[in-house]
Amino acid sequence: MKIMIVGASGTVGRAVVAELEKQGKHEIVRVGRNSGDIQVDIIDEASVDALFAKSGKVDAIIATTGNLFFGPLVEMTAENFNQGLQDKLLGQVRLALKGQHMLNDGGSITLTSGIIADEPIYQGVNATAVNAALAGFVKAAACELPRGIRINLVSPTMLTESAEAYGDFFPGFESVPAARVALAYRKSVEGIQNGQVFKVGY
Amino acid sequence: MKIMIVGASGTVGRAVVAELEKQGKHEIVRVGRNSGDIQVDIIDEASVDALFAKSGKVDAIIATTGNLFFGPLVEMTAENFNQGLQDKLLGQVRLALKGQHMLNDGGSITLTSGIIADEPIYQGVNATAVNAALAGFVKAAACELPRGIRINLVSPTMLTESAEAYGDFFPGFESVPAARVALAYRKSVEGIQNGQVFKVGY
Repeated sequence: MKIMIVGASGTVGRAVVAELEKQGKHEIVRVGRNSGDIQVDIIDEASVDALFAKSGKVDAIIATTGNLFFGPLVEMTAENFNQGLQDKLLGQVRLALKGQHMLNDGGSITLTSGIIADEPIYQGVNATAVNAALAGFVKAAACELPRGIRINLVSPTMLTESAEAYGDFFPGFESVPAARVALAYRKSVEGIQNGQVFKVGY
Repeated sequence: MKIMIVGASGTVGRAVVAELEKQGKHEIVRVGRNSGDIQVDIIDEASVDALFAKSGKVDAIIATTGNLFFGPLVEMTAENFNQGLQDKLLGQVRLALKGQHMLNDGGSITLTSGIIADEPIYQGVNATAVNAALAGFVKAAACELPRGIRINLVSPTMLTESAEAYGDFFPGFESVPAARVALAYRKSVEGIQNGQVFKVGY
């Protein structure tokens, strides 16, 4: 399969690339903001158009990218909150909405959420809302996608690779190595499930 | 209690006003886009500031308002999808973020979702995502709100009053009268629960 990974240089993205390359049967298109085979800014409509114009048709689109706003609720503004809506949420939704027309029949879309969807953390209100919205999007989109195209969501707990930097924000949370998270993306791409949230490590 | 209802002229809003007035102990501030005691455009930051400047401190804020985008997924654009993000989602979130500072100690915020959060309908991808995001927002915000302020979400199935107009979009869905939905808002305002989704009629 020809598989596009948007966010290929991130911790999860690199693990997904490694897992898929290991199968020895896929052509990987690495996409990043400033690196990879093609560059894209997912919050920019024209940039995403240019991405698909360059890539051509693909069999799978994986997004392991998107920024959220973190900060205390009592100081949060609507503008703060909108950052996560425009970036991690609408950015990934934009990839899916445009990507549906660039997928071959039976292709798949796999987006990325996170445990904060289900378990709030301090300063994480925007993250919970955005990740929950992604779950809603995937659940509903799975019911409408044409031509056998599937869509799933991978929702990992804190990455083991990030535990030193971010562990204080996740007190008592278990962590999961990115290599284990990568399996869920392979399950989504090579498997048959549709409209599912693959929770990894929780 | 002094209770602000944003969306007071809508089908649900009117029922909530009636239910709360029936208790004979509340002062109701009716807010609407073009009607009521105070007017507001919830997608406009300055308009929401002006709303609270006019209302002064309140004991409860209820939002029964917000527009979504409806349309087939295969034709949907990111701009379409963003309409619901800016209106029903960020509009209600803006009321909550600004409203937290205008609530007396022990006050409450009650927002409005809908059954499409849990049960997708054709052309309703934006609605599922937005309503799911509201559930995430409420769940996380409840963990951070100060001074005993609570927040809940009311999620009704199709209204009986809307069944003739919208019933074809909800095949096989039961409907619920707005008067029954209104009870959930009273439960949220006068009760003690926090961070809950009150599903009504499903």
